[in-house]
Amino acid sequence: MLENIYIVLVNPSHPGNIGATARAMKTMGLSNLILVEPKLFPHKTATARAAGANDVLMAARVVDSLAAAIKDCHLVIGTSARLRELSLPLLNTKECANTIVTSADQFNKIALVFGREDAGLTTEELHYCHYHVFISANPEYPVLNVAAAVQILCYEIRQSFLECNDHPFLPVLPSQVQYAPTKDVLLYYQHLEKVLMNVGFLNPRHPKRLMPRLKRMFQRIRLEDKETKLLRGILTAIERTLEFKK
Amino acid sequence: MLENIYIVLVNPSHPGNIGATARAMKTMGLSNLILVEPKLFPHKTATARAAGANDVLMAARVVDSLAAAIKDCHLVIGTSARLRELSLPLLNTKECANTIVTSADQFNKIALVFGREDAGLTTEELHYCHYHVFISANPEYPVLNVAAAVQILCYEIRQSFLECNDHPFLPVLPSQVQYAPTKDVLLYYQHLEKVLMNVGFLNPRHPKRLMPRLKRMFQRIRLEDKETKLLRGILTAIERTLEFKK
Repeated sequence: MLENIYIVLVNPSHPGNIGATARAMKTMGLSNLILVEPKLFPHKTATARAAGANDVLMAARVVDSLAAAIKDCHLVIGTSARLRELSLPLLNTKECANTIVTSADQFNKIALVFGREDAGLTTEELHYCHYHVFISANPEYPVLNVAAAVQILCYEIRQSFLECNDHPFLPVLPSQVQYAPTKDVLLYYQHLEKVLMNVGFLNPRHPKRLMPRLKRMFQRIRLEDKETKLLRGILTAIERTLEFKK
Repeated sequence: MLENIYIVLVNPSHPGNIGATARAMKTMGLSNLILVEPKLFPHKTATARAAGANDVLMAARVVDSLAAAIKDCHLVIGTSARLRELSLPLLNTKECANTIVTSADQFNKIALVFGREDAGLTTEELHYCHYHVFISANPEYPVLNVAAAVQILCYEIRQSFLECNDHPFLPVLPSQVQYAPTKDVLLYYQHLEKVLMNVGFLNPRHPKRLMPRLKRMFQRIRLEDKETKLLRGILTAIERTLEFKK
């Protein structure tokens, strides 16, 4: 269960925060850390702050984009302090933990994504997510350190995990549906964009907010594997028809 | 409410942990920090890690013993990873937060005490507490960073605080009893020890575990103000009688 949860840090600039994140994870039983273009890594400050969680730090995977980090994940939850115009469904910390614990299994890998220390996640990155999670904090100073935010969410995941395991007569039902991995959903979006341009609905010189709005809609659905295949099939059918008409 | 809660760090050795503690506190709306003999303070690393919580750091009170830190507090909860022989009632994180939130008011100041990074609290220090709190962690690596532990407990305090305020029709009843401040309880223990020696029950050369056992018993009671005065009165009466018999 816990081994199917991935903690993703996007562009961490302070190596101390990477080490502290590894330690926060291990204290709560999590071990999969992915770093998107860390500024300084490996680094002795990261190693020092990881303390006894050096194994988690050493096993961290380094990738060059959030898309690469989450390509095999079926559910992506992003942390966001700010509310944006095109916001996604918002979870509080306990809802986030319960969603993760009842979803994670060998067929469903979950990513919990943390943004840059100074600027969080970009709008584009937030649109890779199915949910946003919000840590209720002091409105006068809600600025949690990134490793502290990781600690709180991993703690809530562990609490939720223990609650499930403390009640063997109320087992968590395995999820009946197979959700699509992110990489397939992204391929679908590319395919969709191409088709929309081909049909003249999307002007690449004046795209406006068309794709963000569509992505947000599909993200809220949380596409199943079969649905993604179906949507791709529809796009292919449209393209074939266009070819035929030329 | 939150202004009657005190976070106490005993002998912190890393100034970064002091700064991170101040930040963790402020993000959750807490502001009273007490430092018992910090190794390095003030220090530029503490200031850097405090970030926007420098006001909390600057207002921190520095004292030379845990007894001095908690002398005006009516309820003292200590964090402890280890279970000791003479352990006190153990709270989990949510119970701890609920106990604090339903107890803290202008007449009841609460201290939440965190031990040294490497060695926690001594047995003597643990006996200043009424309860111990335990953060459920990975049994293979339960070693939370001290500021991370502060973050989790302050987060749970804020969650509990918000829950109370979200339910205006289920108000928290003000505590009906006035508990004794720690300084009065400690004076009572000293008085008791003196009397026990005077009556030959306690051999100062072979004290055994007598006082720890007695303190643990009284701590579990959580003495009220009137009870402490009564107990002191009894000791004084014993002493006067002994004087009279000389």
